Amino acid sequence: MKRDRVHNADPMDQLEEGRRRVVIEGVSPEIDAGRFPIKRVVGEKVVVEADIFTDGHDAISCALKYRSEDGPGWLEVPMESLANDRWRGEFVVAETGRYRYTLEAWVDRFQSWRQGFVKKVDAGQDVAVDCLVGAELIEAAATRAGKEDQAELRAYATALRARAGDEIERAVEEELARLMEKYPDRRFATTYGKELVVAVDRAKARFSSWYEMFPRSSAAEPGRHGTFQDCEKRLPYISAMGFDVLYLASIHPIGRSFRKGKNNTLTAGPGDPGSPWAIGAEEGGHKSIHPQLGTVEDFRRFVAAARGYGLEIALDIAFQCTPDHPYVREHPEWFRRRPDGTIQYAENPPKKYQDIYPLDFETEHWRDLWHELKSVLQFWIEQGIRIFRVDNPHTKPLAFWEWLIGEIKAEHPDVLFLSEAFTRPKVMYRLAKLGFTQSYTYFAWRNTKWELTQYFTELTQTQVREYFRANLWPNTPDILTEYLQLGGRPAFMARLALAATLGASYGIYGPAFELCESRPRETGSEEYLDSEKYEIKHWDIERPDSLKDFIGVVNRIRRDNPALHSDLSLRFHPVDNDHLICYSKQTEDLSNVIVVVVNLDPHHTQSGWVDLSPEAFRLDPHAPFQVQDLITGARYLWQVGRNYVELNPHSCPAHIFRLRRRIRSEKDFDYFM
Amino acid sequence: MKRDRVHNADPMDQLEEGRRRVVIEGVSPEIDAGRFPIKRVVGEKVVVEADIFTDGHDAISCALKYRSEDGPGWLEVPMESLANDRWRGEFVVAETGRYRYTLEAWVDRFQSWRQGFVKKVDAGQDVAVDCLVGAELIEAAATRAGKEDQAELRAYATALRARAGDEIERAVEEELARLMEKYPDRRFATTYGKELVVAVDRAKARFSSWYEMFPRSSAAEPGRHGTFQDCEKRLPYISAMGFDVLYLASIHPIGRSFRKGKNNTLTAGPGDPGSPWAIGAEEGGHKSIHPQLGTVEDFRRFVAAARGYGLEIALDIAFQCTPDHPYVREHPEWFRRRPDGTIQYAENPPKKYQDIYPLDFETEHWRDLWHELKSVLQFWIEQGIRIFRVDNPHTKPLAFWEWLIGEIKAEHPDVLFLSEAFTRPKVMYRLAKLGFTQSYTYFAWRNTKWELTQYFTELTQTQVREYFRANLWPNTPDILTEYLQLGGRPAFMARLALAATLGASYGIYGPAFELCESRPRETGSEEYLDSEKYEIKHWDIERPDSLKDFIGVVNRIRRDNPALHSDLSLRFHPVDNDHLICYSKQTEDLSNVIVVVVNLDPHHTQSGWVDLSPEAFRLDPHAPFQVQDLITGARYLWQVGRNYVELNPHSCPAHIFRLRRRIRSEKDFDYFM
Repeated sequence: MKRDRVHNADPMDQLEEGRRRVVIEGVSPEIDAGRFPIKRVVGEKVVVEADIFTDGHDAISCALKYRSEDGPGWLEVPMESLANDRWRGEFVVAETGRYRYTLEAWVDRFQSWRQGFVKKVDAGQDVAVDCLVGAELIEAAATRAGKEDQAELRAYATALRARAGDEIERAVEEELARLMEKYPDRRFATTYGKELVVAVDRAKARFSSWYEMFPRSSAAEPGRHGTFQDCEKRLPYISAMGFDVLYLASIHPIGRSFRKGKNNTLTAGPGDPGSPWAIGAEEGGHKSIHPQLGTVEDFRRFVAAARGYGLEIALDIAFQCTPDHPYVREHPEWFRRRPDGTIQYAENPPKKYQDIYPLDFETEHWRDLWHELKSVLQFWIEQGIRIFRVDNPHTKPLAFWEWLIGEIKAEHPDVLFLSEAFTRPKVMYRLAKLGFTQSYTYFAWRNTKWELTQYFTELTQTQVREYFRANLWPNTPDILTEYLQLGGRPAFMARLALAATLGASYGIYGPAFELCESRPRETGSEEYLDSEKYEIKHWDIERPDSLKDFIGVVNRIRRDNPALHSDLSLRFHPVDNDHLICYSKQTEDLSNVIVVVVNLDPHHTQSGWVDLSPEAFRLDPHAPFQVQDLITGARYLWQVGRNYVELNPHSCPAHIFRLRRRIRSEKDFDYFM
Repeated sequence: MKRDRVHNADPMDQLEEGRRRVVIEGVSPEIDAGRFPIKRVVGEKVVVEADIFTDGHDAISCALKYRSEDGPGWLEVPMESLANDRWRGEFVVAETGRYRYTLEAWVDRFQSWRQGFVKKVDAGQDVAVDCLVGAELIEAAATRAGKEDQAELRAYATALRARAGDEIERAVEEELARLMEKYPDRRFATTYGKELVVAVDRAKARFSSWYEMFPRSSAAEPGRHGTFQDCEKRLPYISAMGFDVLYLASIHPIGRSFRKGKNNTLTAGPGDPGSPWAIGAEEGGHKSIHPQLGTVEDFRRFVAAARGYGLEIALDIAFQCTPDHPYVREHPEWFRRRPDGTIQYAENPPKKYQDIYPLDFETEHWRDLWHELKSVLQFWIEQGIRIFRVDNPHTKPLAFWEWLIGEIKAEHPDVLFLSEAFTRPKVMYRLAKLGFTQSYTYFAWRNTKWELTQYFTELTQTQVREYFRANLWPNTPDILTEYLQLGGRPAFMARLALAATLGASYGIYGPAFELCESRPRETGSEEYLDSEKYEIKHWDIERPDSLKDFIGVVNRIRRDNPALHSDLSLRFHPVDNDHLICYSKQTEDLSNVIVVVVNLDPHHTQSGWVDLSPEAFRLDPHAPFQVQDLITGARYLWQVGRNYVELNPHSCPAHIFRLRRRIRSEKDFDYFM
């Protein structure tokens, strides 16, 4: 009995053209069989590899094809053969948007002929017939050739038919091979079938320094609700620290029903401002601004002012509503109704969050809901916003985000999305795959050398690197880690140095961070005592123990050293003390090499021997080199192999070395000789 | 500007049904995104895993769906949740042919409700409304339920609405959960999309013991050309060694043009019989039998006789022709013609093989050619053949084999194909993926512990195991390795023990192997001196130093121990001497555990300590156990951890231990107490 077939190659397809002899498989990068794009920023390379081979011993040629979805058509570069049937090609993505790439390969009869011909000539064999075979191949190419090359090809063919001794030499010369390569016979070429996609972002998608603040806590004097004007006055301070993204905690009107009081208590006092993430009140919802912060016009002015300080504003997107949100009244069909007629509030049994009504993504009116939420982003894009930090995306359907981000980026390829999903790894990775530009990570909870090495090796040296761009936060308004609670100022410095050098993108929640705020609500809790989420704070940003100058130095080092603008080159190096971690980043041409050593013990001086292999930076194993600590300016003479380091966390727990390759010796001076 | 999208999820699809909240990804096994089937034999399990998750905290349910392509429809088993969003399910393939499997998963609202409900009840919260929510879910299930369960479900719902104290208990009892599981709400279930294929073979595809012989060398007296009748007389001898596949070197008429003489010399003497792989003469081609062997009727009789000895005949398929082959005359269009009008002979410049005309798979008449070659297999299938050993498949187009094997197996799912491709790894793997049942390997050239461990770990512990079934040959008519040339009888014994226990399928070319034939044509060559390929040999199979009895013992051990019928459980164990290799195989239930130790040094006695971890066989770390050498019968008392072994290659270079778990102690006897 005959069976129908689905995934196995259809024999009828094979009977359509059985002469496609080349196989293309094992293509990388390729995410989930091409289901998702890889990510790049403008100017980056896409290096594509594949296993490509044919039966028998014939030579093959392979082409990497690529195009911008906005561009006129396919471009093509030849691939080169590596070992073991692996081929490689590369192209550069020049503009934001989406590119595609695919592969094509074919049996190259001229190359096959040429290789055999050379061997026969070398072996002194009679090549009379081979000359005729070669001439036929060249003549066939001439019929495919452009006018400018036809005559030259025909001359080669004629000479080969004549087969004088030196014409045999001509038959295998490079010029002929180059010409033949221009006019290959691709009738039976194998195409890869799939077109793979590259999502190309602007540079900030890869390299960004974030500062998070609560606008309402920006007033110069205690007790007053801050405004966008107050925020504007804070800009020079933030800019001086070297940040380039200013992320504002949610700025919408705050609900009154079930409003939370200080320290997340269930009942608010009359003066309590509520959590900014309890979105929606009589004054409006997701397209409105909390009246005490200012108007939409104030906001636009503030966004422009920030731009003047090199700061781009990132807005918080939290798709949830208070019972007072206009949606509850206008679109009750977007919420789940319980059998008693009430609306289902958020819960994680036995915990209840009665101040929050989650949107019901299983409503029959989900299409209207999706479009409305899209219009929220569009509204803020119209106000000049191009970066969204998305709150808890993992509690809304994954398909919704893929659609939403796809829709927005099709219109505005410069928009960036940061996923705030602190959840299970596969969910976090899926959100990145489906379109989020950057992602929060587990960095806050990775403190030991082993943990950091494992995690950042996974993020930067596996396929994850193709779609997941880490954004490292040592703290957030919700996360004050035990390490920061117990480690004091050295812990804050160490975690900042780690975040800023392990991650091309990182951020801090300030001024809590630079002021080393470390008191938890209670022992064992990661929440801040008197958290800014539930009250207006007044921060003394000029306190002499502030880390603002240290942060400024580190951000300047980041800006000046392109090695730190990407995570792909990250490599860890052995140190014989587990309290010390050492890693490096480098530009592809090795013109900028950064080696970082951090003392992970915030209490004690630690010392040890860092082991640098010569392969790591293509170092001359016999020549010493200089490393300069870019934080202190101090220079050290190092060598390939073991080098001593010692870090007192109470002065500075980190070295950020720049490797300077060239050490002059007596031979560099005229008087030597 | 809007852009069109190809591979990224189509937003319009998402707008068709946005409530499919579950994601299925990372499915294994899945070869090249489902392009190729995985392989199993009848009765084996298919264990399927996948990453399955949804947004938020809802419970999900996942089903593994499978069906025989010949069966009536889909069957389904629930999958179970492992750690980290990984799910697993399994099914058994019961018949040869092709199966398909795919996945489906959905948010399970009842389970989600039940989990929250229990937590709320435990926390002493008011669950009045929750009871109503649960009742609604149960009532909805009742409408989906079969008649036999509707009343019971409605009773549960009614009780829950009444919400007496013990009804709350009933609401979460297992019986209700079980009932609800029968009638899930799968309106918004996510289907995986792809149907993956399992190619199911009969058991011999996985476990087979091959013996290769040249039929023409089977005559009882020297100098006479053997016949199928002579072959028949050889059957008891081969059967006594315990083989179950008898593979015959090519049996077709042999060409006369450019016939090769002894030791592959260019000119044959009048008595030289030629190479059996120079196929085609006046007497016929691929559907004919060399007249001196007998007739087709003789052949059929021989095949039947072999069956009586438990031996299945495997036929050699070599798609190449001599200049005398009928195809050359009848179908000149299937050969490549050179510009001088001659037909292109085989060459690998500067080497020429003028006795062979390769078929031109790039001919415009390739369709006719493919169909003719298929008819060759059909012809031999009609003569009772179900196993083909394919000569050099890597020199014919890969697409051709995929088509051919697909066509044949669709009609005859019991046919097996062995790929004789000694070529680059990716080509060998591709041939296995596209349909070859078994494959020759690099085993012959893997001699050291490191080489064997690396290679067999790749074959058995990576994805390769899903499609590549190794068949290990210590020798072939073309391969007499240096190890065998130099190692003498101990080398033949060691390589046989390795092949027969590392590989569930293995084979030898005899009688050269059991007679330890080790003379190369010249130093540095892997060809036999006076190779059987070019002359008729007479083997003294009763020589007292023959390995036939040893081979018989090893094949009996193979037959009696199901652990050796598969390669998937293969694990290597440390030995503190690099000349000794130790590995084990076991059945899934551990009722049969085999531990093999081989001395790889054919010259000297080697001893060392084998290290067995308790995890390897779920051993009691404190109890000794017995191992019995199945070759000698000797028993040893071993323990978890280090055990001493010593092997003198001149008596026997291998232990094949069966592990016997239970050692009785005084507590097992009545008089203890």
